Amino acid sequence: MKATTRASLTTIQAQDPLPSWNDGKAKRSITAFVAKVTKEGSPDFVPVAQRIATFDNDGTLWCEQPMPVQFYFALDRMQALAPQHPEWKDKEPFASLLKGDVKDALAGGDHALLEIMGATHAGMTTVEFEKIVKDWIATAKHPKYQQPFTACVYQPMIELLAYLHANGIKPYIVSGGGIEFMRAWAEKVYGIPPEQVVGSSIKTKFELRDGKPVLVRLPELNFNDDKGGKPVGINQHIGRWPIAAFGNSDGDLQMLQYTAGGSGQRFCLYVHHTDAEREYAYDRTDPLAKLNKGLDEAAAKGWTVVSMKNDWKRIFAFEN
Amino acid sequence: MKATTRASLTTIQAQDPLPSWNDGKAKRSITAFVAKVTKEGSPDFVPVAQRIATFDNDGTLWCEQPMPVQFYFALDRMQALAPQHPEWKDKEPFASLLKGDVKDALAGGDHALLEIMGATHAGMTTVEFEKIVKDWIATAKHPKYQQPFTACVYQPMIELLAYLHANGIKPYIVSGGGIEFMRAWAEKVYGIPPEQVVGSSIKTKFELRDGKPVLVRLPELNFNDDKGGKPVGINQHIGRWPIAAFGNSDGDLQMLQYTAGGSGQRFCLYVHHTDAEREYAYDRTDPLAKLNKGLDEAAAKGWTVVSMKNDWKRIFAFEN
Repeated sequence: MKATTRASLTTIQAQDPLPSWNDGKAKRSITAFVAKVTKEGSPDFVPVAQRIATFDNDGTLWCEQPMPVQFYFALDRMQALAPQHPEWKDKEPFASLLKGDVKDALAGGDHALLEIMGATHAGMTTVEFEKIVKDWIATAKHPKYQQPFTACVYQPMIELLAYLHANGIKPYIVSGGGIEFMRAWAEKVYGIPPEQVVGSSIKTKFELRDGKPVLVRLPELNFNDDKGGKPVGINQHIGRWPIAAFGNSDGDLQMLQYTAGGSGQRFCLYVHHTDAEREYAYDRTDPLAKLNKGLDEAAAKGWTVVSMKNDWKRIFAFEN
Repeated sequence: MKATTRASLTTIQAQDPLPSWNDGKAKRSITAFVAKVTKEGSPDFVPVAQRIATFDNDGTLWCEQPMPVQFYFALDRMQALAPQHPEWKDKEPFASLLKGDVKDALAGGDHALLEIMGATHAGMTTVEFEKIVKDWIATAKHPKYQQPFTACVYQPMIELLAYLHANGIKPYIVSGGGIEFMRAWAEKVYGIPPEQVVGSSIKTKFELRDGKPVLVRLPELNFNDDKGGKPVGINQHIGRWPIAAFGNSDGDLQMLQYTAGGSGQRFCLYVHHTDAEREYAYDRTDPLAKLNKGLDEAAAKGWTVVSMKNDWKRIFAFEN
């Protein structure tokens, strides 16, 4: 090895791969886990092909407050489509939403949500939908930060994704969000390619239109990738048992339990939203993304709990 | 470059990557396609990440006659479970099957098939099912060849998988067969890892059993990965448009149409079963795996059609 090469290697090793993380128990638990599973010859060594990590998206990789990003997309899409649907003025949940009254609209529960999703996410081809999402996300802004939603991703988690990738640990998104909604921007924003995105979906149907093959999006739920659905989605898409899982709510608990249940070294981490100033503070009683049972189980099992306020030097890249 | 290195490279380049293929139109269409999409700077060049190839399994990668392998698995499993189910003696389709009368049993159509699948493929955890399949396939033999089913894979296709892999073209299985059934042996036999297997599936359910997480297999169809379902499965699992697709029946036609519909260089290939002596000869009227519309469309579109009799020097590795 030439002297110059050795010098650059030393520089790289000396660099902190997680510069936005404060030095503390959470950060050290991550680096200790990665060191263990990547050390050849050690009893905890995991071959590269089996190094699977799964990440929730909303609230784990990007901001999900005051409402999940995909819901803003649905609202904007509804406004755009409203002129073609004069009947929405007298029909719930559309009437309330068009007046900006989200609470009244969602009083209809799951049925109302499915109506909204059907009206805004179905009826087009998968290729058309991808373009609609890409066009929207290029300009839409977060109401609090006035930044593109794709800038409201957690810088410490972006560093973590890169750090895992550099250590041969393959990150998958496993989210309750729409699989096609996320794929439209996940590679650009997270470096996660489409085949590593697992999410909720509606059904699609193959058709030949003037001899050209298309997949048409139908207003019918195909898969709900939340709670017990997350391990099901992991098995369906990946077919391997993850060695690490990252979430932020009780909706991720089963994914963390599933991951922890594998044999050998396993790592589970909860992002705890504790920073009302820089982001939002919510946990046990949040109506949208409750972290209640998960906090108890993390304490009982010794899982890592990240306090956004204490463990993260900065939350968003745009802060600096 | 040292002289020895240059010499070995020359040797490798001179080696035929597809030695079990006769030199002819089919073989040359494959190597010409691979040369085009991998040539940097050429207008047909495809970046590695987008080099996705999809393969049907039954009849394309391994022998599906006189019955698909998974059906033998179901029959053997039914025999093994019969002592616990005395009621099967008087109940169709079980009664006929236990007497070895497959035709009568399948007279019940899809309903009969679902009954068989539910009785033999559900009720256990995914981990238990994997072990059942691995144990079975380690000893079960093909009735004609008296070889393990995993030896009844087409040697020319095994070479093709390796050749594509060596050229950065990632092969996925996209089969009507069960996804968990295939994953149990696909990596060992084809070198295709679990996350590159797409197939039909039954529903699974997450449970904690004595605190241990399991996925229980339920007697309920989740996804039928056949015909129009194949493009749906490709989009769901891969989220990319394949550049090449390989099949052998009308059940693969939509996958080939979908693949051909992408922009840029695309490659579609049908394996045509023309060798009654070394394997089986069947196409337009086969009750199980008809290749009728597909043959016409292949001719019209200029897709490659492989005659097993004329294009393959040998079909199985055990021939030599």
